[in-house]
Amino acid sequence: MRQAGRYLPEYRALRARADGFLEFCLTPELAVEASLQPIRRFGLDGAILFSDILVIPHALGLGVHFEDGQGPVVEPVRDAAAAGRLSTSALAHRLRPVWETVARLKAALPPEVALIGFAGAPWTVATYMVEGGSSRDFAAVRGWAYRDPVGFAQLIDLLVEATAIHLNRQVEAGAQVLQIFESWAGALPGEEFRRWGVEPVARLIAAVKTAHPGVPVILFPRGAGTTYADWAAESGADVIGLDCGVPLEWAARTLAGRCILQGNLDPVALVAGGAALDAAAERILDRLGSKPLVFNLGHGVLPHTPSEHVDRLVALVRRWRG
Amino acid sequence: MRQAGRYLPEYRALRARADGFLEFCLTPELAVEASLQPIRRFGLDGAILFSDILVIPHALGLGVHFEDGQGPVVEPVRDAAAAGRLSTSALAHRLRPVWETVARLKAALPPEVALIGFAGAPWTVATYMVEGGSSRDFAAVRGWAYRDPVGFAQLIDLLVEATAIHLNRQVEAGAQVLQIFESWAGALPGEEFRRWGVEPVARLIAAVKTAHPGVPVILFPRGAGTTYADWAAESGADVIGLDCGVPLEWAARTLAGRCILQGNLDPVALVAGGAALDAAAERILDRLGSKPLVFNLGHGVLPHTPSEHVDRLVALVRRWRG
Repeated sequence: MRQAGRYLPEYRALRARADGFLEFCLTPELAVEASLQPIRRFGLDGAILFSDILVIPHALGLGVHFEDGQGPVVEPVRDAAAAGRLSTSALAHRLRPVWETVARLKAALPPEVALIGFAGAPWTVATYMVEGGSSRDFAAVRGWAYRDPVGFAQLIDLLVEATAIHLNRQVEAGAQVLQIFESWAGALPGEEFRRWGVEPVARLIAAVKTAHPGVPVILFPRGAGTTYADWAAESGADVIGLDCGVPLEWAARTLAGRCILQGNLDPVALVAGGAALDAAAERILDRLGSKPLVFNLGHGVLPHTPSEHVDRLVALVRRWRG
Repeated sequence: MRQAGRYLPEYRALRARADGFLEFCLTPELAVEASLQPIRRFGLDGAILFSDILVIPHALGLGVHFEDGQGPVVEPVRDAAAAGRLSTSALAHRLRPVWETVARLKAALPPEVALIGFAGAPWTVATYMVEGGSSRDFAAVRGWAYRDPVGFAQLIDLLVEATAIHLNRQVEAGAQVLQIFESWAGALPGEEFRRWGVEPVARLIAAVKTAHPGVPVILFPRGAGTTYADWAAESGADVIGLDCGVPLEWAARTLAGRCILQGNLDPVALVAGGAALDAAAERILDRLGSKPLVFNLGHGVLPHTPSEHVDRLVALVRRWRG
């Protein structure tokens, strides 16, 4: 999950130095500093690049902006003709600031802190592009996929191509691990989750592994529900990120033998703090900690999270690890 | 799912006759007519009571209103002290219009059309009460449950009690089947889904079955994901409603031997119509139709659904049934 954010006063001060959120992400000086802030404050084992999954639609030539408190707004792509007008011709030019951020970040980080690059999965990025932003029912993107699967596949294929370039360039700039966010896996129809979700991600991971065979890939299919096991078995990911709704016993029984697990502390438990936080964290360590585990949250840090609760959590996990 | 709605012109005309949505639900003359409209138009096998899950907070004394296009607004209950001020003393007075609607509806329906009553599950109704409406992250309700599980349990227990009364009175008024909507099963933390989800629903179903042993209960734990099998095994429901994200093969393999299934056509496929609709409906009939099946949608009818697509779907299912 994004480690930096509004819950940190130093982040809020830094954020005030850029007008738009996209500009903030695309200014290496600011994005490097945002990526480093949580590492300095909490001494975490891994640093995640500060960026956004919507740099890809921006790089494909679409207007993208973020309204405060409203979420992202993307110039919508509603049919095959509109998808056909998208192009990767300016991709390298528009994504270069992200790759430069990765390179500067790699140089700035202590060698023992792993640098994690990331991108959105094709389906998830497509939902923003087709809906024009966030959505409650995903009716536009699902509707297009039902009505015109051939045309929709063109958009998905373009996203696989662009995202593979983006991830590979992050590795070349110094990222040691990659994470793919399928944040809207839960919006995939049960009969279409392979076609629009798992298969494009598998192609993306294969493209990354072909270029960089050793790089570990974390996949976070948030809300995958009953299909979590299929994502783990068929995507080619090395690590599967669990959302907060996945019971630990189920994960231990069904997934733990198949891949490394990451997650899944409820960010609301991190807001609650105290004994509730300790109990929630200890349960994860008890039930998943006998196998390799990337301890993490099951969703992003909430803005009103007290940073002392993060200190407490980090100390607890460090004590457990010994 | 609610059968009547904005996709029907006769519904929009009827809706204009009441100011607020809650008033509309609580006026038997209007609610009976709304319940009958889709039966008249489509000749369906079952009629669902036109009402809302938020009649329960209203009946417990909270302010509830619906803003057009904004969703419901509920006077929030944020702690045990506020929950302690709620009372069932006016429950029968405030819910009587719903029970009267059921009785009038039963008298108006042809005997071969089954009448389905319903209520929200305790957790789902609690989310609206604690968040004060819909929510993106459910941080308030989850936070209370982490910080003060004893206090939160009082609210859940009160909801079990009130909802049991409401469902039993619906059966006594003529409902032949009951449906329980756990619309926010997907917001239950993976380590808390039994305590706040399955167990309260199991107590509710037990209370209904004690009073009315023969009444079939449909449970719709939307977004239950990996826990769908636990809901089916532990709730005591006769029928489990599948959301649109549940793959049919998984449902056939995991759930179909254990309970009757209901669902799960994607309402977006109903908007798409044509061959995409036929294919989606036929897949459900092919994969789940060899066992008892309540053919239904996996979520509510979308407002921009062409009613001819519903005609087409009903004809397809009738042809299949022969």
